[in-house]
Amino acid sequence: MDTDIRFTDGRLPVSTIRPIVSEANRWQRWLDVEAALAQAEAKAGIVPVAAAKAISRKADIRKLDLPRIRRDMAKTSHSLMSIINELSKAVGEPHGGWVHWGATTQNIMHTGDALVLREVHNEILHMLSETFTAMAALADRGKDMVCAGRTHGQHAVPITFGFKVAVWIDEFERHSERLHQVEPRVFTAMMGGAVGNYASLGEKGPFVQAEVARLLGLNPMDVPSRSIADALAEYTCILGLIASTSGRIAKEVYNLMQTEFGEAFETVPEGTIGSSTMPHKRNPQLADDCIAIAAQIRSLVSLGLEGMLHEQEVNGANYYMSQDSILRACILTDDLLRRINAILAGLQLDPVRMRANLNLTGGLISSETVMLALGTALGRQQAHEIIYENAQKAGATGYSFEELLCADDRVTKHLSKEQVKALLDPSTKAGLSSKLAEDAAKRARKHARKLILGTVHAALTPAGQTAK
Amino acid sequence: MDTDIRFTDGRLPVSTIRPIVSEANRWQRWLDVEAALAQAEAKAGIVPVAAAKAISRKADIRKLDLPRIRRDMAKTSHSLMSIINELSKAVGEPHGGWVHWGATTQNIMHTGDALVLREVHNEILHMLSETFTAMAALADRGKDMVCAGRTHGQHAVPITFGFKVAVWIDEFERHSERLHQVEPRVFTAMMGGAVGNYASLGEKGPFVQAEVARLLGLNPMDVPSRSIADALAEYTCILGLIASTSGRIAKEVYNLMQTEFGEAFETVPEGTIGSSTMPHKRNPQLADDCIAIAAQIRSLVSLGLEGMLHEQEVNGANYYMSQDSILRACILTDDLLRRINAILAGLQLDPVRMRANLNLTGGLISSETVMLALGTALGRQQAHEIIYENAQKAGATGYSFEELLCADDRVTKHLSKEQVKALLDPSTKAGLSSKLAEDAAKRARKHARKLILGTVHAALTPAGQTAK
Amino acid sequence: MDTDIRFTDGRLPVSTIRPIVSEANRWQRWLDVEAALAQAEAKAGIVPVAAAKAISRKADIRKLDLPRIRRDMAKTSHSLMSIINELSKAVGEPHGGWVHWGATTQNIMHTGDALVLREVHNEILHMLSETFTAMAALADRGKDMVCAGRTHGQHAVPITFGFKVAVWIDEFERHSERLHQVEPRVFTAMMGGAVGNYASLGEKGPFVQAEVARLLGLNPMDVPSRSIADALAEYTCILGLIASTSGRIAKEVYNLMQTEFGEAFETVPEGTIGSSTMPHKRNPQLADDCIAIAAQIRSLVSLGLEGMLHEQEVNGANYYMSQDSILRACILTDDLLRRINAILAGLQLDPVRMRANLNLTGGLISSETVMLALGTALGRQQAHEIIYENAQKAGATGYSFEELLCADDRVTKHLSKEQVKALLDPSTKAGLSSKLAEDAAKRARKHARKLILGTVHAALTPAGQTAK
Amino acid sequence: MDTDIRFTDGRLPVSTIRPIVSEANRWQRWLDVEAALAQAEAKAGIVPVAAAKAISRKADIRKLDLPRIRRDMAKTSHSLMSIINELSKAVGEPHGGWVHWGATTQNIMHTGDALVLREVHNEILHMLSETFTAMAALADRGKDMVCAGRTHGQHAVPITFGFKVAVWIDEFERHSERLHQVEPRVFTAMMGGAVGNYASLGEKGPFVQAEVARLLGLNPMDVPSRSIADALAEYTCILGLIASTSGRIAKEVYNLMQTEFGEAFETVPEGTIGSSTMPHKRNPQLADDCIAIAAQIRSLVSLGLEGMLHEQEVNGANYYMSQDSILRACILTDDLLRRINAILAGLQLDPVRMRANLNLTGGLISSETVMLALGTALGRQQAHEIIYENAQKAGATGYSFEELLCADDRVTKHLSKEQVKALLDPSTKAGLSSKLAEDAAKRARKHARKLILGTVHAALTPAGQTAK
Repeated sequence: MDTDIRFTDGRLPVSTIRPIVSEANRWQRWLDVEAALAQAEAKAGIVPVAAAKAISRKADIRKLDLPRIRRDMAKTSHSLMSIINELSKAVGEPHGGWVHWGATTQNIMHTGDALVLREVHNEILHMLSETFTAMAALADRGKDMVCAGRTHGQHAVPITFGFKVAVWIDEFERHSERLHQVEPRVFTAMMGGAVGNYASLGEKGPFVQAEVARLLGLNPMDVPSRSIADALAEYTCILGLIASTSGRIAKEVYNLMQTEFGEAFETVPEGTIGSSTMPHKRNPQLADDCIAIAAQIRSLVSLGLEGMLHEQEVNGANYYMSQDSILRACILTDDLLRRINAILAGLQLDPVRMRANLNLTGGLISSETVMLALGTALGRQQAHEIIYENAQKAGATGYSFEELLCADDRVTKHLSKEQVKALLDPSTKAGLSSKLAEDAAKRARKHARKLILGTVHAALTPAGQTAK
Repeated sequence: MDTDIRFTDGRLPVSTIRPIVSEANRWQRWLDVEAALAQAEAKAGIVPVAAAKAISRKADIRKLDLPRIRRDMAKTSHSLMSIINELSKAVGEPHGGWVHWGATTQNIMHTGDALVLREVHNEILHMLSETFTAMAALADRGKDMVCAGRTHGQHAVPITFGFKVAVWIDEFERHSERLHQVEPRVFTAMMGGAVGNYASLGEKGPFVQAEVARLLGLNPMDVPSRSIADALAEYTCILGLIASTSGRIAKEVYNLMQTEFGEAFETVPEGTIGSSTMPHKRNPQLADDCIAIAAQIRSLVSLGLEGMLHEQEVNGANYYMSQDSILRACILTDDLLRRINAILAGLQLDPVRMRANLNLTGGLISSETVMLALGTALGRQQAHEIIYENAQKAGATGYSFEELLCADDRVTKHLSKEQVKALLDPSTKAGLSSKLAEDAAKRARKHARKLILGTVHAALTPAGQTAK
Repeated sequence: MDTDIRFTDGRLPVSTIRPIVSEANRWQRWLDVEAALAQAEAKAGIVPVAAAKAISRKADIRKLDLPRIRRDMAKTSHSLMSIINELSKAVGEPHGGWVHWGATTQNIMHTGDALVLREVHNEILHMLSETFTAMAALADRGKDMVCAGRTHGQHAVPITFGFKVAVWIDEFERHSERLHQVEPRVFTAMMGGAVGNYASLGEKGPFVQAEVARLLGLNPMDVPSRSIADALAEYTCILGLIASTSGRIAKEVYNLMQTEFGEAFETVPEGTIGSSTMPHKRNPQLADDCIAIAAQIRSLVSLGLEGMLHEQEVNGANYYMSQDSILRACILTDDLLRRINAILAGLQLDPVRMRANLNLTGGLISSETVMLALGTALGRQQAHEIIYENAQKAGATGYSFEELLCADDRVTKHLSKEQVKALLDPSTKAGLSSKLAEDAAKRARKHARKLILGTVHAALTPAGQTAK
Repeated sequence: MDTDIRFTDGRLPVSTIRPIVSEANRWQRWLDVEAALAQAEAKAGIVPVAAAKAISRKADIRKLDLPRIRRDMAKTSHSLMSIINELSKAVGEPHGGWVHWGATTQNIMHTGDALVLREVHNEILHMLSETFTAMAALADRGKDMVCAGRTHGQHAVPITFGFKVAVWIDEFERHSERLHQVEPRVFTAMMGGAVGNYASLGEKGPFVQAEVARLLGLNPMDVPSRSIADALAEYTCILGLIASTSGRIAKEVYNLMQTEFGEAFETVPEGTIGSSTMPHKRNPQLADDCIAIAAQIRSLVSLGLEGMLHEQEVNGANYYMSQDSILRACILTDDLLRRINAILAGLQLDPVRMRANLNLTGGLISSETVMLALGTALGRQQAHEIIYENAQKAGATGYSFEELLCADDRVTKHLSKEQVKALLDPSTKAGLSSKLAEDAAKRARKHARKLILGTVHAALTPAGQTAK
């Protein structure tokens, strides 16, 4: 039962991350590492050059007997030994015996999975590039649409819709920075052997690890201990941060799409059914998905942290916790970003309804503006008291805020009725919302480009790695 | 990428829970609910009796065009509408129009999934029955094997191995009680319509729901609101509690299997490979799996609780959180209990090593016994001080605890050297360990029988439900 | 820095739980256990009756030198030894030496903290009684106030406000049942000594534990192992479930109080400041608090589960995890329920605004009603299609739903314009909302009474326990 | 009830972080921000220079009437308004009215708390510097102490104790890098007003914010929205990562201190009581504390992430979640690092016991070495099979591994008995453990120095900030 199947899958681009974390691709990356290991050891004079060549030639999943591997795996309860044996057989005598020389299983799996994770990383960068592009367009589109700014669910002061998007862009800029900074920590080659102290390779160990890293475009570990899991946990944390921003955006769309708001709408393709019993229903299905997926990703973060608690030189249990949290988080991030991008790219805005909502408080939304105008004469505290009193009265009596202000001597001594009226017009009071949206859109476009470049760069097939 | 595939799967009984939560079985249970609904509505005079009969006859997944359902699902992004339409078509005119009358999608899915969950529940009870049986045998087997009782990792006072098992039995007894108590809250029928207030069925609504519940052997909801998720969250909590006890047992086995302990061993089938580079390795693979799975289940509990935070009359996002947490927790519990049962049933004990370890402290493990003997003469506090002093000295100087005690006038004034020697023999000081183990084993056997009966009872195919 | 201080504290009843979990009260409960232990051991013929009497007389925190205890505690790094020593001194010769005979620290702390937790439990029951009373009144008050039922944030079908409250009552009824069921598991006496196998008390151990339990009104543990923490974890889970319902109610109030909804309002006492810069702001401060506190409690549940993972016969670390999670969860529950009760008791409703919002969709909210009316003639599926088409058109074109239906032959063939108009009037379409609210209010009142009775019963000072 | 009080507090240096997050210091930092705001606004020509001077002079908590502030706070339920009013009164006419001009509460609290967090950050860096110093000394001390490397709890291959420390150093190096990278994201000034769009300050807003940031040594926010919480969540994640490494170190000490291991010991000061009933007990109290605290910190990470889910322009609830998670995590990190530093600085090592444990497997720990020696002749796979067979036989029969190898023709054909014996001597097989420890110690010392410099630099009192 794959609980990750969602009913909206049919209207989205297909997943690019699932194939990367598939068994087939992971096994290939492990084989890539066996090939790189043999080459590095040949260079170090540990294994014959001919053996390294033979191993590299056969380290291709298409050349191995997969059913036999699976049968053997069921018998040995071991994740890698069956693949190694199969590779040895494929290489044959006299070179087969040099396969996996001096390495331990986790060396191969960690390093191969680092390659897998880097492929996933590139897809994430690619999807984030699209996120930035969509946000940039949305920020520009909404930069002058005045609407209510709301704090604690209450109208506060006017903003524009583009300002909301500027906030989202701002959070994603930092996520992009985090993903960049974590790269050298997470894309690492580990070749320290059984416990990470080069017990089998000895003095040549660090050279072999460095060479494997070079061939695969990874970073060699300073201390190649199998019990180190902080970088994977950190990556899961970053996915948790990205999920939280994404979940937040989705909830905002959900909120604005509510019947009582009606300011923004997820695109609902023709033919979509909202409800089996209420024919009029038009539900925020993608937003609902995103909110749930984001919560699922958040729940994996604590598992990733617990995974770090290795005892001694390694624990299987903690290794599995790290694996499960990072792999599931990557798959869920794929599901999440495909939906967020669809939401952002297709978001329908209703500026007329925004304006209508803005007028719901009869000018109360401009109370700060009047207070500051009055404050220049009376000081902020006294002005706050006068405006507070009239605002509360407006709520309680049904008189309009404007009427009450114009009937209050303490106000009219300093402001004419025309001034009061002008101060209460919300449509001109959105501060620098427009400018902030515009600037954010520009930065978003820059990020979109940079991320694509980052992707291309990292995707260069490193020496020794089998192209997909 | 199914992160739940584990390398030890090959040596365990096949999963019985995965088929239950499969798409095929879930769809069939949903169809069972549509059939029960039609029958209940016929009885209430809402739909024609002939229609109810026709619908019940066709509510069988083997009679529907599954590929067409899947194609339609991709188009509508709706989880149930395509199945309803297909069922209507299969029923044909004039009765097809009465399918799903007055119900909303979640009514069917919630009630059908309650049937699914009850099937899962029965499997869990069945597996727990085996857990109790295995623990009873183990408690009996180890009830007289004296070993060190350890607190904070330090030898404390002697126990027997069976006492450890008594503790596990005790926790599982309460889990069994919890699973029993939650049943009426979690196996419920919901037939309140679009928002749970019987808007479509009106006055006849409660009767219809009660009748559906009766036909399916479920409990009708007092307030059939779609936003109620506490019972699912509670069930996930209980699975979290079971996981924690199971993870704890696994960690204990892991610990006792350590080279430095060597007191208990997971059975390792012939042919199993521990390490690709260390041929002597014999790893606690099942224990490692269990510890990790338990952590995964624990991480789902918070998601289940968050799922309860519905807004208004229902949120899709929260519904998905509940679904994902309960379904994944059930599957993981299956993976966990199959392994725990294998560990418990096959656990190898080494009483010789237990005795050897018991003597590691040179009698310090009996310090409490000596203190209490001395305390009857001097009072507990003064005795504690004298023994504390000698125990610390033994640690610091290398003299044996016995030598030091026999050289201390404050001791020898009240106890002869023979008495001291006898008090220091740990093998006779395990308190009531043996009795506690024996009693627990008896209770465990009773639970094992009761759980099987519970299973049989609940598995009776209720009227209206298609047999598997 | 006490992060639990909140700015709204000033307008709420003072905490009744904080004094219970204070150091002073906990120490007294520990002393109560020492007294009960001495009495039980006297009855068992282990310690002299005179000693038990002397110990019981002095087991009163007001008679001990607290500053000396604290100084000694800092020196020994031990939680209880200093209190035991001080009690021994207070009892003096010849009886002082019998204090704490045969017990280990955690026996006293666990059993004393069970008394503390029972006091907390009574306060929680008391507060929940108030919650039920307030909900009953609110359900009655709102049972006929028609408003929009909303699913996925979209108008679905009409309900009444009282129906919302019925849902809350329903969840709290199950919480009340859970709290009742957990009592025998959580209020337990533990007197098994150093590792839980009665090593020091021997054959008389179970009698002593049973007698201590009887004197204190607790349940004796079957296996008094110090490593058992499932009941505390379960209690924390239940507090997590209660928190989730409470957080949900608070979020609903927050939502309905939004400027765009305006249907329900938290009472804001005169003089309260919403914002330092926006004088008109009237924020849902209590609701905000509740949502945050509920999240804090939820985050403690995983800690409580992790606390169960004791190794061997006890781990200090896991004991602290259990302690921290349960104590903090209790304090936070106090903060939460005081606020929820204030919100529920003072909630202001605006039925006029509810009706205004109900009309926002121009009748679309009644689409199910029209569909079912049409469906009796055409079948549900065909009716769904016709209504779906018109509903989508209404959204897209600006024509009213009523106009479109009356212009559609497929509709007018079966329904007159008057019938359509009547079917579209939402005010009469709230199903059984009113009845469900009424019934729930009755059940809530019954629970309110039962909980108070439960409280009184459990609060009876048990033999041997010092009255507060 | 402060659940953070621990019994070991008496033997540790006093907390330096608690005073920083105290109410008094937080209020002072908020006042620092009000002063900086007034100065920045004076420079921008918004408020009179004389007013800015007057405000700065009085923005000192020692000059305000604190009891009056607290009374007023209880009345208004507002966190800052009472302080603002008090400051205005202290400034008096005509300048008092300019206090807090154009700012909203959260602008002041966020920016002031960023100052608080930076002070905390410096203390953390300072403590980590001590951690590195202690680890460097320990790595050097243990670099040549050969002991068993253990994977999955089983002896794997030999290492030295220093290698374990090298792994810890490696993780902390990355933590140090993370703390450095997060600085510009987390130490930010926010001066965007009510919703973050400079609605009140208008065009001059960005200048005012930049100037406030400059005066306080902070980073101005690009989009000063109150709903942005990712940096705080990220900081909590990093504390979670640090906690996980620390908890792991503590568990390793706990494990090695077990009676069965006896390789390393937490220093237990004279007079410390391990158990009230077992006088010989010497418990890993600090390690137990650390493991529990680390779990508490981990449980706060998910709360921090949930805090990011602001709706619209800000939610109070989410703000409180962020506050609670970061503040509690900081306090707990203080408690944790003080203990870890005490453990590391005082750790007692027993190299004799390490060697004794190393010999527990009778040479099996060297199986990889023999396999690789044999493998150069036979190939790795065949050698693995031969050694696997003999290792399993050694476990099953009681024959020593050496005897079995020397009796196996397949072995003796390639290796003499002397060679076998030499290969089985574990004391010379620790790979590069010593070198890795030495290198790590060097890097640790460099980090220790760098962190102290980092601290000094950041602690420079910025212009406008009141010195402590």
